[in-house]
Amino acid sequence: MPLLTRIRGPRDLDRLSLEELDQLAGEIRTFLVDAVSKTGGHLGPNLGVVELTIALHRVFESPKDKVLWDTGHQSYVHKLLTGRQDFSRLKMKGGLSGYPAQAESEHDVIENSHASTVLGWADGIAKANQLMQRDSHVAAVIGDGALTGGMAWEALNNIAAAKDRPLVIVVNDNERSYAPTIGGLANHLATLRTTDGYERFLARTREVLEKTPVVGRQLYETLHGAKKGLKDFIAPQGMFEDLGLKYVGPIDGHDIEALESALARAKRFGGPVIVHCLTEKGRGYQPALQDEADRFHAVGKIHPDTGLPIAASGADWTSVFGEEMVKLGEEREDLVAITAAMLQPVGLDKFAKRFPDRVYDVGIAEQHGAVSAAGLAHAGVHPVFAVYATFLNRAFDQVLMDVALHKCGVTFVLDRAGVTGTDGASHNGMWDMSILQVVPGLRIAAPRDADQVRAQLREAVAVEDAPTVVRFSKGAVGPAVPAVGRVGGMDVLREAGTDRPDVLLVSVGALAPMCLEIAGLLDQQGISTTVVDPRWVKPVDEAMAPLAERHRVVVTVEDNSRVGGVGSTIAQALRDAGVDVPLRDFGIPPRFLDHASRAEVLTEIGLTAPDIARQVTGLVAKLDGRFDRTAQTVDSVEPARD
Amino acid sequence: MPLLTRIRGPRDLDRLSLEELDQLAGEIRTFLVDAVSKTGGHLGPNLGVVELTIALHRVFESPKDKVLWDTGHQSYVHKLLTGRQDFSRLKMKGGLSGYPAQAESEHDVIENSHASTVLGWADGIAKANQLMQRDSHVAAVIGDGALTGGMAWEALNNIAAAKDRPLVIVVNDNERSYAPTIGGLANHLATLRTTDGYERFLARTREVLEKTPVVGRQLYETLHGAKKGLKDFIAPQGMFEDLGLKYVGPIDGHDIEALESALARAKRFGGPVIVHCLTEKGRGYQPALQDEADRFHAVGKIHPDTGLPIAASGADWTSVFGEEMVKLGEEREDLVAITAAMLQPVGLDKFAKRFPDRVYDVGIAEQHGAVSAAGLAHAGVHPVFAVYATFLNRAFDQVLMDVALHKCGVTFVLDRAGVTGTDGASHNGMWDMSILQVVPGLRIAAPRDADQVRAQLREAVAVEDAPTVVRFSKGAVGPAVPAVGRVGGMDVLREAGTDRPDVLLVSVGALAPMCLEIAGLLDQQGISTTVVDPRWVKPVDEAMAPLAERHRVVVTVEDNSRVGGVGSTIAQALRDAGVDVPLRDFGIPPRFLDHASRAEVLTEIGLTAPDIARQVTGLVAKLDGRFDRTAQTVDSVEPARD
Repeated sequence: MPLLTRIRGPRDLDRLSLEELDQLAGEIRTFLVDAVSKTGGHLGPNLGVVELTIALHRVFESPKDKVLWDTGHQSYVHKLLTGRQDFSRLKMKGGLSGYPAQAESEHDVIENSHASTVLGWADGIAKANQLMQRDSHVAAVIGDGALTGGMAWEALNNIAAAKDRPLVIVVNDNERSYAPTIGGLANHLATLRTTDGYERFLARTREVLEKTPVVGRQLYETLHGAKKGLKDFIAPQGMFEDLGLKYVGPIDGHDIEALESALARAKRFGGPVIVHCLTEKGRGYQPALQDEADRFHAVGKIHPDTGLPIAASGADWTSVFGEEMVKLGEEREDLVAITAAMLQPVGLDKFAKRFPDRVYDVGIAEQHGAVSAAGLAHAGVHPVFAVYATFLNRAFDQVLMDVALHKCGVTFVLDRAGVTGTDGASHNGMWDMSILQVVPGLRIAAPRDADQVRAQLREAVAVEDAPTVVRFSKGAVGPAVPAVGRVGGMDVLREAGTDRPDVLLVSVGALAPMCLEIAGLLDQQGISTTVVDPRWVKPVDEAMAPLAERHRVVVTVEDNSRVGGVGSTIAQALRDAGVDVPLRDFGIPPRFLDHASRAEVLTEIGLTAPDIARQVTGLVAKLDGRFDRTAQTVDSVEPARD
Repeated sequence: MPLLTRIRGPRDLDRLSLEELDQLAGEIRTFLVDAVSKTGGHLGPNLGVVELTIALHRVFESPKDKVLWDTGHQSYVHKLLTGRQDFSRLKMKGGLSGYPAQAESEHDVIENSHASTVLGWADGIAKANQLMQRDSHVAAVIGDGALTGGMAWEALNNIAAAKDRPLVIVVNDNERSYAPTIGGLANHLATLRTTDGYERFLARTREVLEKTPVVGRQLYETLHGAKKGLKDFIAPQGMFEDLGLKYVGPIDGHDIEALESALARAKRFGGPVIVHCLTEKGRGYQPALQDEADRFHAVGKIHPDTGLPIAASGADWTSVFGEEMVKLGEEREDLVAITAAMLQPVGLDKFAKRFPDRVYDVGIAEQHGAVSAAGLAHAGVHPVFAVYATFLNRAFDQVLMDVALHKCGVTFVLDRAGVTGTDGASHNGMWDMSILQVVPGLRIAAPRDADQVRAQLREAVAVEDAPTVVRFSKGAVGPAVPAVGRVGGMDVLREAGTDRPDVLLVSVGALAPMCLEIAGLLDQQGISTTVVDPRWVKPVDEAMAPLAERHRVVVTVEDNSRVGGVGSTIAQALRDAGVDVPLRDFGIPPRFLDHASRAEVLTEIGLTAPDIARQVTGLVAKLDGRFDRTAQTVDSVEPARD
């Protein structure tokens, strides 16, 4: 990597010739495939933006100018060009974040991994630049997929209104969100691609491909085939200029010279400009290009040559859900599925294959996913909207005001709930069981194992007059955790073995094995413990208060923010019932969590069996001396950070 | 009203001649001005859709077909045509809702008053119709203002993708959100208005005006002037057809014959169609038309002839905020204001007049309001985003992931927080102090009087590394409630007058006078009470736990959902500190509240001084016999509904 290793910052690009820049692009691709195949990460998107990133950093002077990335997983090349070339611990504790991170570099701004935000950020920064009369430019890179999100529209509408406020929008058009982009906008972009620029792009692509050993003629055919169904020629500016935005393009997103020329023109323009770049997700890496499903959007550790995964994982929560959905689909013709541009990651691919007319991909548009689900339910269909827990935040108002207020039978399946770890702060699904608590009528299931996923999904879709939520973790599902009894609607996972037990341990979802471990540790201290899994954590089961009253202390453990979560809500239910048994609630502390493995994060926040057992032991000791106010207080719930 | 009184349902329209329909429109306008001037309500929007509503119900067969209204305050005419002509108790307890209500009529669907939802609902219903092969049409009415909301874009993108799924979108274009609509879309709609259809509309308008006594030539001039700044002619289909939507229009929205013809064509089309209708907010009512600010968007009780308010209100929370913003603007050049299409209702009109370059109206786009605020703050400006509390729900993800995660100094001013009453379930601002609790670093101020609004706004805008929230009620602000002491950062409003008092009463925001009244009532029962106002309710003041420990019971009172609210959070803070003093939290029960006056709602939910005093008395009595488990339990916190 003779060129790449000499790049310490963006200005080092200035002295390279065009030929050297092309060589650098090649080195970067080799680096990415090599590095990301060792650690896992977002490979396809970054292979697609190599030339674009180089051109951006040649034209804009970061950090004086701001180069902003939407859905920051496409920022690896940007990291390489801004002094960060140690990818050995990518997404690992202490290593590089998988997203931009202000703590890593003055060249980074947006850390949030949720899509469609960049134009809003850019609008705000451009407004501040104008107000403060700063000589600073803003370039915002957004994918065609992210343009389907409502935030992007709101921002475009604002940006277009200020003709004298410079802002460069780079549409990175690879015809994909995660999967191929859908909707009216995608069709319009397809139209724009019919112009001469697109023909030139194809011609050049063929030329490049024929010179590149790792990819071949086959790709060209595929790309060319993508033109199918194009509408008649329309002036290329299309809807963007209708909004009042200057349009430049389409530009071959792998032609550095063309990119630089277009970006430089856009930078000089003095108002809002859209530069429409055509790129290829997975560019230059044959295994990615051959994967039509997602072009290696995000990978685990893989063999760099074949792209095959190194470790095959066992059954995971997602596939358990996905398989049960197919069964439910066979049984009920009125069941439909909704995804926000993530059909396969949320496990709906099998359902879609079996029932293609009963699945709706709404684009990166969680708001629309929820509100259209309300409409479907109102009209007599039962929608199951499967979405990552963290992304449901986008649709909070719609869940509350459209689904719940109208008593619509909609089931939300929240995948990747709880601590997910390596994708950093914005990918943890740690808010759902708090904010959804306020939604009247909504019920939340937190299944603890595969059997419960199946059973509770069935219970959820049977509810026709209220929203239901089924939330589960990321990754492999553990072995079955059998119930040994039932109290109300709750499963008893462990009997305390005494009439007046010390601790009622309330286990939420996938933390059941940990809770059983805690009970074992308490047992060793002579503390008798009942472990109960409420199954449905909202509403609080009516049997909870009487059960709690038979114990000396209640302990709740959840994989969700402590604030306003299951523990808080149970505490309130006990207060309302006049049951003043002391309660301690363990969960995720109210702060953003740095990227690290799930296990490392749980250890750091004290959500481990030994930590919790130790604190409960202290609490019981305090209760034993309950009226001695001089007794030492229990440890604070959150341990100090290391 | 010879015609109107004979209309019992939409089919009664079928036998009327065009002349009679015009007469009916006139009767409806007279009815609306007469009825709404007595009760208050949304006058301007309904005067604008009289002919459109008649035409819709002539063409579509509700309830078999669905006629859907965005932001349902424009549904008064729809109510009149679907059997609801008693407007005497509009928005009052037991009277008609100010929005569609499924409980009122089988012709109503969307009850939610939040804008931009209708296209999502329509998409869902159309999908269900297609799936179930129902012979049923869907017509969705959306204003040009609501089209600036991201949800509308997400829906359009989905609707446009299904060429074979019938759906009629009626764009009710009055060039206004609340105030005139802003942004690139508004400019595009202006372009569409330059076609022949618009000229015909103007010509006809002049004709109508000259025949109508209440309005005159002046209006025509105004309307004609609105064409200023129009761009060159572009094909009228514009961006809608770029998205793949069939476009019909523009249609004179006050010409019933033209409307019927266009809607009938659209209904027959067999796919998604946009019918672009030009209407005039406040049509036919001179006082509304002369009010350029908002065309009588929503009024209180007024004199029907002059449009002047009958009762002038005193100082309200909004204007206290608005005036302080002007002062702050004078002091700090880096302070800017953001509104989501509600400049005057949130009190920013004075600031806008004084600092026109430092206020941003983002359209009905709360997401963009929040994310662009993050960008502004990142670039060194302090934005104050003033918004109704209920509408902040739309931006929850952006507050969390863009503002808080990036430690941006953005101040959110939440107006109309708590129970607002007459606008029904979706207008109560009862969720903010719950869902915002989970946001790391965010601080929430709940000022109790005008002085505190001023003081806490100043404290809020001084915070540059985290989001701050200042939330206050709707309507008149009460007299000052002085502090008699200070504990930590909290104001003591009343000392208990004893070393070991019974009750610590935590008063949140505007409920301070009620809490002092509760303390007085408890005093009469021999129960000594300290009243404290935390001022900043998040984070919980460090002095809270030690203070609580000096009391026998803690009682919290807040104008917010009980679930996850201030009381819950204080309870958690006490648990974390090992303080097991019993706590009872009073607030709004977790259900949707029917429309009624604020006082009626508070009474119904038991949030009154006598109710709370009675329950606290019972609780203290129980504590006096604390180990007697046979003692009667305290009343349930929420009284039975009447």
